[in-house]
Amino acid sequence: MNKITILIHCKDKPNIIASITNFIANKGGNIVYIDQYVDREQDIFFMRLESEFVSDTFSTLDFKTDFKSELAETFKMKWRIYSSEKKPKMALFISKYDHCLYDLLGRYNSGELNLEIPFIISNHNDLEHIAKNFNIPFYHIPVTKETKKEAEDKQLELLLEHKIDFIVLARYMQIVSDKLINQYQNKIINIHHSFLPAFIGAKPYHSAYKRGVKIIGATSHYVTEELDAGPIIEQDVTRVSHTHAISDLIAKGRDLEKVVLANAVKLHANRKVMVYNNKTVIFT
Amino acid sequence: MNKITILIHCKDKPNIIASITNFIANKGGNIVYIDQYVDREQDIFFMRLESEFVSDTFSTLDFKTDFKSELAETFKMKWRIYSSEKKPKMALFISKYDHCLYDLLGRYNSGELNLEIPFIISNHNDLEHIAKNFNIPFYHIPVTKETKKEAEDKQLELLLEHKIDFIVLARYMQIVSDKLINQYQNKIINIHHSFLPAFIGAKPYHSAYKRGVKIIGATSHYVTEELDAGPIIEQDVTRVSHTHAISDLIAKGRDLEKVVLANAVKLHANRKVMVYNNKTVIFT
Amino acid sequence: MNKITILIHCKDKPNIIASITNFIANKGGNIVYIDQYVDREQDIFFMRLESEFVSDTFSTLDFKTDFKSELAETFKMKWRIYSSEKKPKMALFISKYDHCLYDLLGRYNSGELNLEIPFIISNHNDLEHIAKNFNIPFYHIPVTKETKKEAEDKQLELLLEHKIDFIVLARYMQIVSDKLINQYQNKIINIHHSFLPAFIGAKPYHSAYKRGVKIIGATSHYVTEELDAGPIIEQDVTRVSHTHAISDLIAKGRDLEKVVLANAVKLHANRKVMVYNNKTVIFT
Amino acid sequence: MNKITILIHCKDKPNIIASITNFIANKGGNIVYIDQYVDREQDIFFMRLESEFVSDTFSTLDFKTDFKSELAETFKMKWRIYSSEKKPKMALFISKYDHCLYDLLGRYNSGELNLEIPFIISNHNDLEHIAKNFNIPFYHIPVTKETKKEAEDKQLELLLEHKIDFIVLARYMQIVSDKLINQYQNKIINIHHSFLPAFIGAKPYHSAYKRGVKIIGATSHYVTEELDAGPIIEQDVTRVSHTHAISDLIAKGRDLEKVVLANAVKLHANRKVMVYNNKTVIFT
Repeated sequence: MNKITILIHCKDKPNIIASITNFIANKGGNIVYIDQYVDREQDIFFMRLESEFVSDTFSTLDFKTDFKSELAETFKMKWRIYSSEKKPKMALFISKYDHCLYDLLGRYNSGELNLEIPFIISNHNDLEHIAKNFNIPFYHIPVTKETKKEAEDKQLELLLEHKIDFIVLARYMQIVSDKLINQYQNKIINIHHSFLPAFIGAKPYHSAYKRGVKIIGATSHYVTEELDAGPIIEQDVTRVSHTHAISDLIAKGRDLEKVVLANAVKLHANRKVMVYNNKTVIFT
Repeated sequence: MNKITILIHCKDKPNIIASITNFIANKGGNIVYIDQYVDREQDIFFMRLESEFVSDTFSTLDFKTDFKSELAETFKMKWRIYSSEKKPKMALFISKYDHCLYDLLGRYNSGELNLEIPFIISNHNDLEHIAKNFNIPFYHIPVTKETKKEAEDKQLELLLEHKIDFIVLARYMQIVSDKLINQYQNKIINIHHSFLPAFIGAKPYHSAYKRGVKIIGATSHYVTEELDAGPIIEQDVTRVSHTHAISDLIAKGRDLEKVVLANAVKLHANRKVMVYNNKTVIFT
Repeated sequence: MNKITILIHCKDKPNIIASITNFIANKGGNIVYIDQYVDREQDIFFMRLESEFVSDTFSTLDFKTDFKSELAETFKMKWRIYSSEKKPKMALFISKYDHCLYDLLGRYNSGELNLEIPFIISNHNDLEHIAKNFNIPFYHIPVTKETKKEAEDKQLELLLEHKIDFIVLARYMQIVSDKLINQYQNKIINIHHSFLPAFIGAKPYHSAYKRGVKIIGATSHYVTEELDAGPIIEQDVTRVSHTHAISDLIAKGRDLEKVVLANAVKLHANRKVMVYNNKTVIFT
Repeated sequence: MNKITILIHCKDKPNIIASITNFIANKGGNIVYIDQYVDREQDIFFMRLESEFVSDTFSTLDFKTDFKSELAETFKMKWRIYSSEKKPKMALFISKYDHCLYDLLGRYNSGELNLEIPFIISNHNDLEHIAKNFNIPFYHIPVTKETKKEAEDKQLELLLEHKIDFIVLARYMQIVSDKLINQYQNKIINIHHSFLPAFIGAKPYHSAYKRGVKIIGATSHYVTEELDAGPIIEQDVTRVSHTHAISDLIAKGRDLEKVVLANAVKLHANRKVMVYNNKTVIFT
């Protein structure tokens, strides 16, 4: 049995839903999940649909071809179709903080994540032993001002060689270049240790402490050229008080970062996120 | 323009979604909202759908007739169809606590609630002045052990006379009889001041205090014959500590009760709740 | 029996706590609540203490005089001493939104707030009927660009005449002048409808919608000369998604605003808030 | 410099606080933290106090002796005094679930926990490799109905030999015997995967699913003879919906369990928890 997931967005028009469900039915598919959303302000239609096909002769490639000519062109859709046969491949970028790394690898090991991790890249080798414990190839690619371009070329080479689908910056402490961002648009997930848009940039826990906020947060977003301004995938918060020193905020924040990043990774890997106008539509 | 909302559940079968969307398209409807859920354990299909009809000749009654014969019988559906022309009518039952009453009437006045409140019933007259301030008819129907049956007959008479669609017990301090429950199945909404199923019955804040919990909650549910055991619509919680006396729990709880009950009322009035197996499916 | 509440802050020094508790014991007081906090970065000591005095001859005035000469001067304390005999007087400033007003007056009526509300001031008369229902004097003081100074003089006159202790801006849609701020330093409480420091200024729900945040918030803070930048007293948040239109954010936000403002008012009225370095220390 | 932490509870009486602070001052101590709470219902006084002593001749033993004769006996206090020189020793009991184990060891490694872990005991050897990676001795002590008594004797022997202060059951899937509970009263911390008192006993996620709750929780508590009924240290919750299968509840619950257990461990290790009447007083 084949199962495919379809993500669509286009200008809203009458009869889109019936046209799509008819198309699926005609192809012999049984829809097992359908969700849709219309942005009334912008008049944009979004849909996520999962369909099962039992026929021996079903071909995802043929399905895509027909979908394109029979539906997508008529409605001027932007669309993506995924087969459940293929798990997405995720590259992990890390530096020196280990909490998100341990958390993601723990979930990976327990089977919670529907993805593959072909390798880990780090600009430091402090955490190589963790990669080893979990039996995941580890590439140490140092980055200095002088070697930054060269380092990125090495990264890109590895990413392409392994056919990586998306990248997760698990507290990777380097600005990612436009070249990588363009190659992986809405496919690089970062975890920022504040409740964005509050406290953009470096040392957000210090800023939160100084401002005297009563709640701190963490935000997972897609990386765009503007720092910490990409589409937000997931956020969470926790309560703090005047008794918490900066080190307490950092410790409490670690727990947020882990869960928020893991949730964002799961949403992305399960093809539940659509991006438009620098915002996300999330089908759950 | 007519807008109708359809709620369906039935045994899951192939092609249900395509059949329904085709039916709507053939009737000249444009689907503006569709959401669906399948309980894989029980193999039950649920759907909520909103469709707009622009034709002058559209009749909700005809639509229902055809829906029944062409779809519902084939798939053995349980179904409800609502026209947006008619706002649901809600009766408020209260006793002596005013916080949920003020909250609901404040929202009603500000236009937040998509419903009508033809009257308020109370077994006490302490809060009559509030009903007056908001210009809502108030019926004082005292309830004693001796007069309980008679009081309920009066209540039922008022409910039927005003064609009430659903009842909200806004801290109404009387057990509702089976007669009323049967007449209004899954249409009587209660607010219980605990995080059910913890602390069923009377004085839940006292029990929470005694047990030393660190979080208290409130639960809104449909009333069934078993006390505090009906399908849960909405819950929320708040953090407490050893420093909180019972009176503090009660005060903090009031804020929960208001928001939880209001959310449940909105979900029900917007036809977003389906009930089965003593649980709710909530389409948001 | 007299009960007094003491709030102190000063440079941290050895033996402060023993000196204070000794002073109280010598005066015949029994300490029923003591809490303290030291900001290790700034080396500042904070204390909140409640003490009961049973003697017939106890005088709060004498106590203050002795406290000043025997303790406060030695340790160079900033201090405030309140007698429980006197409830604080709060003035409510409102405009056209009624949700915070209804909420605060509902709590006031139910005895939840330990304060008096001598009057309500509004720059519009839309909500006068609510003041009437709750039997609270209402002053309509319109504010235009031309009459702003004059209007503020009228406000100040009323505030002084009624010996108002603190002011609550319950969605009052006017910038308060420096004159009022200076007269009531750390005594004007505002509710801002965002999770500060995100979305400072006008239309924060619109900005939150545009940024695509997954959580919205509300913040209660003391008013300072810099807009929305004063010491934060209380914050709370709630989850939103792409399905929420701006009107939904506004409706969900109203529930946050009510609870956050009410909590801030209670903390202030119970003398549980201390301010320093534009931050709050909150003893709970 | 010596730093000691004192925990006291006794019948409330006038002048307790002044007596204690005087005693500390006379011994040359400087109080750096004081917090107190009175249960007005039961009339019980609780205090937590930290004091620094700079004298070369200060002896914790002498201090305890004098504290006992000069203060504790007068006020009939129950008391504990800890020196900061000695980190508490924690034994970890595990079975087959690794998420709490990874989480605690990650925090231990990063220096977040103020304690020592001399060894891990498990009734299975599935997770031995994790203990090895973190260089912590691992004892495999299988437990069957026949060997239960013998196994517990081995456990107790190890606990006494290593002078273990408290035990953490990190999803240890065995009932602990009364013998161990009596030896370690209010010193065995369990994590239960529900929002207690709801869903006591086995398979709480299954029960939560069946009841259709909208929020699930986790609870960390001290182990007493009655199952899942001991004093609650910490709880947390997360929102769920009808779309979550039992496996989703389990996955979301794991994140709760990790954070709730870690918080309880930190509170206990930092001597911030006092127990009475099967409830906890937590000084933060």
